[in-house]
Amino acid sequence: MKQSLVIVKVGGKIVEESDTLEQLLDDFNAIPGNKLLVHGGGRSATALAEKLGIESHMVDGRRITDAAMLDVVTMVYGGLVNKKIVASLQARGVNAIGLTGTDCNVMMSDIRPVKDIDYGFVGDVKAVNSGFLSSLINQGIIPVLAPLTHDGKGQLLNTNADTIASEAAKALASMFKVTLIYCFEKPGVLLHEDDDNSVIPYISYYDFPRLVQDGTISGGMIPKVQNAFNALQAGVSSVLITKAESLDKLTGTTIAL
Amino acid sequence: MKQSLVIVKVGGKIVEESDTLEQLLDDFNAIPGNKLLVHGGGRSATALAEKLGIESHMVDGRRITDAAMLDVVTMVYGGLVNKKIVASLQARGVNAIGLTGTDCNVMMSDIRPVKDIDYGFVGDVKAVNSGFLSSLINQGIIPVLAPLTHDGKGQLLNTNADTIASEAAKALASMFKVTLIYCFEKPGVLLHEDDDNSVIPYISYYDFPRLVQDGTISGGMIPKVQNAFNALQAGVSSVLITKAESLDKLTGTTIAL
Repeated sequence: MKQSLVIVKVGGKIVEESDTLEQLLDDFNAIPGNKLLVHGGGRSATALAEKLGIESHMVDGRRITDAAMLDVVTMVYGGLVNKKIVASLQARGVNAIGLTGTDCNVMMSDIRPVKDIDYGFVGDVKAVNSGFLSSLINQGIIPVLAPLTHDGKGQLLNTNADTIASEAAKALASMFKVTLIYCFEKPGVLLHEDDDNSVIPYISYYDFPRLVQDGTISGGMIPKVQNAFNALQAGVSSVLITKAESLDKLTGTTIAL
Repeated sequence: MKQSLVIVKVGGKIVEESDTLEQLLDDFNAIPGNKLLVHGGGRSATALAEKLGIESHMVDGRRITDAAMLDVVTMVYGGLVNKKIVASLQARGVNAIGLTGTDCNVMMSDIRPVKDIDYGFVGDVKAVNSGFLSSLINQGIIPVLAPLTHDGKGQLLNTNADTIASEAAKALASMFKVTLIYCFEKPGVLLHEDDDNSVIPYISYYDFPRLVQDGTISGGMIPKVQNAFNALQAGVSSVLITKAESLDKLTGTTIAL
């Protein structure tokens, strides 16, 4: 029987401010068994860019990444946010290792082709070194993945953290029984946008088109749920959409085929 | 018989500008057998700090590291410089992994006690996870170490890259026949400060006090040579002081007991 593996993706303010980060890592630490953490850091990247006089341009929540912005996200995601998380996990006796996609070729990508929009140095994942990740996990080590990949030709590429999490989950699904948890600002997918008590506990593949059509799932939530279904179809056991503050209870919206 | 391991420490401009970095990594790559790279990044840290309006204070070449400067060096050493090197090595088909001291607890340190000078968040190394480093090396992976450590209680600490290199060399000396190479701006220890052709090919422990007394070895070179002797006394096989541009020829000053 496969061992279980819980992959948690957390972005937003919670990973970037020390008070909330400490609580988050306590909750993460309390999840039993094998674990892997994927983090964002967009707010800190935007803040650093602003201080350096570099303008941030976002299209549909995705960051346009020119050479100066790539340096910013490499510093913030690969350095500041990643290493603070790892040091805080080590302080809990958790043997964590911070990795970007270029480290041991953990995640390779192709630069996104220019169609309507030139995203710049943004990568679409094409290969995951699941052998190396699983060998770390089997040694009791917790990988902490920053949302950066590389093209194998020397170019670092900015990559969406949700995608990093789902690609890691899919690649590791042949070796582990993978639960993928997306933490975001809301306690789950909401029936009524402004009512945090209206969490939809369960969305099946059958329900999904109807919920998109009637507007319940809209905007940035559509690709999140679609990503979840893609992961399930690739062998991931279950996907949970929740908020970071609920990580201790593991409540939220379960996505199922 | 122990396998060989070459540990190269490179700092300065050469690792921070892409043209010179590419040549350096070609030369590094040409060294046969097991390898480990330790890098600096001080110029980029100073430049970023300046852009952010953070003043750099140095005492005897050591950086005073307050909380804001710690964030800067974490971004520059752990993110920007480290990940660019790793991506460039991967482009050469070299399976490199970028690590700070907190990753898998590779290097733990104590914050430096305040005596005459308060260095701030600066760490003195107290333990090296040589087991993890050697397991990577034995898998053919090249560790690339950034000059950052942690105290095991959640605090990242800025740590001199020369020290990172010598501590790694000493800790790995029981497992490998270690050659430690320090690259700096000069082609070796010079008999006449301004004459690059006056490299002293060989300095023994017997010569050292005399060369300090007569002023041949002075300033920042004294702790470099002293560090080399400490490493040799702790079991490191040989130490070479050279400049990065001579890494392909491995000429310079050999330090010996």
